[in-house]
Amino acid sequence: MAGKRVLTPQDEDFPRWYQDILNKAELAENGPVRGTMVIRPYGFALWERMQAEVDQRIKAAGADNAYFPLFIPEGYLSRESDHVEGFSPELAVVTQGGGRELAEPVVVRPTSETIINAYFSKWVQSHRDLPLLINQWANVVRWEMRPRIFLRTTEFLWQEGHTAHTTRQEARDYAARILREVYRDFMEAVLAIPVLVGYKTEAERFPGAINSMCLEAMMRDGKALQMGTSHELGQSFATMFDISYLDADGNQSLVWQTSWGVSSRMVGGLIMAHGDDRGLVVPPRLAPVQAVVVAVRDAEGVADACHRLAGELAAAGIRTKVDDRTGTGFGRRTTEWELKGVPIRVEIGPRDIEQGKAALAVRAGGDTEAVGLSEVPARVASLLDGIQQRIFDDATAWRDSRIADASTPAEVREATATGFARIPWAELGPEGEADLAADAVTVRCLQRPDGSLPQSGDEADLVAVCGRSY
Amino acid sequence: MAGKRVLTPQDEDFPRWYQDILNKAELAENGPVRGTMVIRPYGFALWERMQAEVDQRIKAAGADNAYFPLFIPEGYLSRESDHVEGFSPELAVVTQGGGRELAEPVVVRPTSETIINAYFSKWVQSHRDLPLLINQWANVVRWEMRPRIFLRTTEFLWQEGHTAHTTRQEARDYAARILREVYRDFMEAVLAIPVLVGYKTEAERFPGAINSMCLEAMMRDGKALQMGTSHELGQSFATMFDISYLDADGNQSLVWQTSWGVSSRMVGGLIMAHGDDRGLVVPPRLAPVQAVVVAVRDAEGVADACHRLAGELAAAGIRTKVDDRTGTGFGRRTTEWELKGVPIRVEIGPRDIEQGKAALAVRAGGDTEAVGLSEVPARVASLLDGIQQRIFDDATAWRDSRIADASTPAEVREATATGFARIPWAELGPEGEADLAADAVTVRCLQRPDGSLPQSGDEADLVAVCGRSY
Repeated sequence: MAGKRVLTPQDEDFPRWYQDILNKAELAENGPVRGTMVIRPYGFALWERMQAEVDQRIKAAGADNAYFPLFIPEGYLSRESDHVEGFSPELAVVTQGGGRELAEPVVVRPTSETIINAYFSKWVQSHRDLPLLINQWANVVRWEMRPRIFLRTTEFLWQEGHTAHTTRQEARDYAARILREVYRDFMEAVLAIPVLVGYKTEAERFPGAINSMCLEAMMRDGKALQMGTSHELGQSFATMFDISYLDADGNQSLVWQTSWGVSSRMVGGLIMAHGDDRGLVVPPRLAPVQAVVVAVRDAEGVADACHRLAGELAAAGIRTKVDDRTGTGFGRRTTEWELKGVPIRVEIGPRDIEQGKAALAVRAGGDTEAVGLSEVPARVASLLDGIQQRIFDDATAWRDSRIADASTPAEVREATATGFARIPWAELGPEGEADLAADAVTVRCLQRPDGSLPQSGDEADLVAVCGRSY
Repeated sequence: MAGKRVLTPQDEDFPRWYQDILNKAELAENGPVRGTMVIRPYGFALWERMQAEVDQRIKAAGADNAYFPLFIPEGYLSRESDHVEGFSPELAVVTQGGGRELAEPVVVRPTSETIINAYFSKWVQSHRDLPLLINQWANVVRWEMRPRIFLRTTEFLWQEGHTAHTTRQEARDYAARILREVYRDFMEAVLAIPVLVGYKTEAERFPGAINSMCLEAMMRDGKALQMGTSHELGQSFATMFDISYLDADGNQSLVWQTSWGVSSRMVGGLIMAHGDDRGLVVPPRLAPVQAVVVAVRDAEGVADACHRLAGELAAAGIRTKVDDRTGTGFGRRTTEWELKGVPIRVEIGPRDIEQGKAALAVRAGGDTEAVGLSEVPARVASLLDGIQQRIFDDATAWRDSRIADASTPAEVREATATGFARIPWAELGPEGEADLAADAVTVRCLQRPDGSLPQSGDEADLVAVCGRSY
């Protein structure tokens, strides 16, 4: 069936497709202040599910949640010179409070290293206070000149982890553990988005870090999206904020630190990694609604059957919603659930009830089947597992088909028109990197030839994965 | 056993007791910008549990979470005249962004009626879009001249619900439903804090509301804390932001609205409603840690037994932690868990293991008992239920003993030195109210003589509950 065109096709105009889906799936829209966004209930439900899954993994990695102030004295940021240089062009500054000019202006946090480390300095006294593992869920503000909803916004939502350790190796291992056990596991197992992991080059490092690890995903237009980062901060903040401890031998030492974060940008990644010309495709493990039970039309017993079945699905642990808005056409509602990417539609009409059946329609792939009413919960549960795996496999195969090996910058340029290029870092080097940057091609990460995470960005034989990025 | 004095006793200096407990139980401390606070992990864990319980009830009442920008154009606030008058003295204003002076300064949200209703105006078109029930968890900023951690801070965390309805009665009923089914149920059943419900007088109403309902609790110094509010906004915001819909008959009508919120101030309420001279008392249904298994000292098998038992407690659905820091003295650790108000300590030492027993110590009341190791999980579970009820009953009895009936303003003044006074509103009236205000005594709420919630603040025979408040 050739449906009505709901979205601008991806092939025709990918940025417009993205804008269309934000509107039509009721995900988010622009706020009144430039660069800010309003996250609508369905978009926020996606983010809430991400938060819950990431939070659970962060707690399992031993970090505790806390909350630090939105407002940071201007002087705090300047203590770390790379840090202030990196962030000062993006700051929002409060100069009036309570009807008066402030004696010292305050900055709206762009990230919280400075204010959190000021407290770490008070809380860390002895080696018994270490490691100190803190996470914060918060809004942050970075004034954005070219905003794009979810991807680059003046205000965004995120978590930021901040830790202090006794040794450099322990800090590095913890930053890598977060990257693997929290971020990669979440992105691959829940978001069904395959990610490349590696180190940032010096040019792309977080301001103030000695090493930045990252996770990079490919969107359906072949561009890269940085999905998260985990940094080794070394001892720069420890020095500036005097975070030191008495070790077991009675010596005073500085701590070694990390910081790491993922943000509401992941919602944009989810949209662009799996979406198609009919809308979002939400993997079941993330989906706020895994199955929607749709009443085909208003007829004797239909609404009752829908609610009864929804109750059984919910009892089987499936996140379920009923759509009995029979005042609105069935086709229009089908389009809406496709746009929202709900994994399975369970459709029940008068004829289905006569036959004791329901029609199951799977969003990813579009398969449909008729199933006896009593078998629906078991069938939906088993379909959901398969759908999760299928979405991940499809995304992986598609991405891998768009990664090319290159041996010269010219080949990198060519390959990155449609995807990623891999080139030995020894071949490219910082000069080749600077050269590519003129064409908006960047090194997304440095990784070992087998794709695994190195111990640092300085290992020999690293491969640079290059791409155009959001 | 006469323990070492850990906190300033409540009777000696209540505000200092409060300050001591914030520090010693590691709940929160002042931020660097005046009036801001750092919420430490244990304080934040209390808030996270509150959030989870309130959020679940809000969703059950049919509202969806969403997120609106932190920054509001200055012009938005002035559209509702009472609203801007109420909030403008407390605003924080951003005048610089991205390194430049802003053409129009932006306000850091003190509350989000204006920005949310600007979007309601776009989203509400037809009666089919109503009721529109939205909630937001967010930080808000109100410049605070006399800050006090958790109770009055320049930045605080809260949820704010915003709804639109077709009729005034439906809006009023929904505001009352939130007050009862979300807020009162949570406060009484989870926080174990008895609350008085009623209407605010006109003098105490939310700026822009036509009616404000509230929940008031008594702290251990006899003062009142407003724990939450639920407002009927009438049609003032609907008029200013043009929120109208086409009804079933094809007529254009304005919506009727509500807004409602509870905040991190409830953490202060929890501390002051139940705390004693040994520290916090956290009711089991709220407690992030319901039982802590404490290794008395380092000896063969002790740590193993603690971890084994903790596993059994966790398997029984009890939020459990192990304290095996035997490098720190047992007495010091006991003091710490008392300070943090953990409902039950399960203590295991070498002698306990020999006897196959553990010592259970209950924080509220201080009872201790020896229990066979295999019976510990069942015994802890049954104790927790009893503790929850006991804390609520004690708080209720104590509060009720400090509520006096008064018939003149002079009697109100006397009674409010140590608690609340009840006086017929017809006796007091707005003039008596203004008179009491000179002595910092306010009408906390207007309720029916039997304590129930009236249909409005205009009913005859209402009783004014008066007190000194935070």
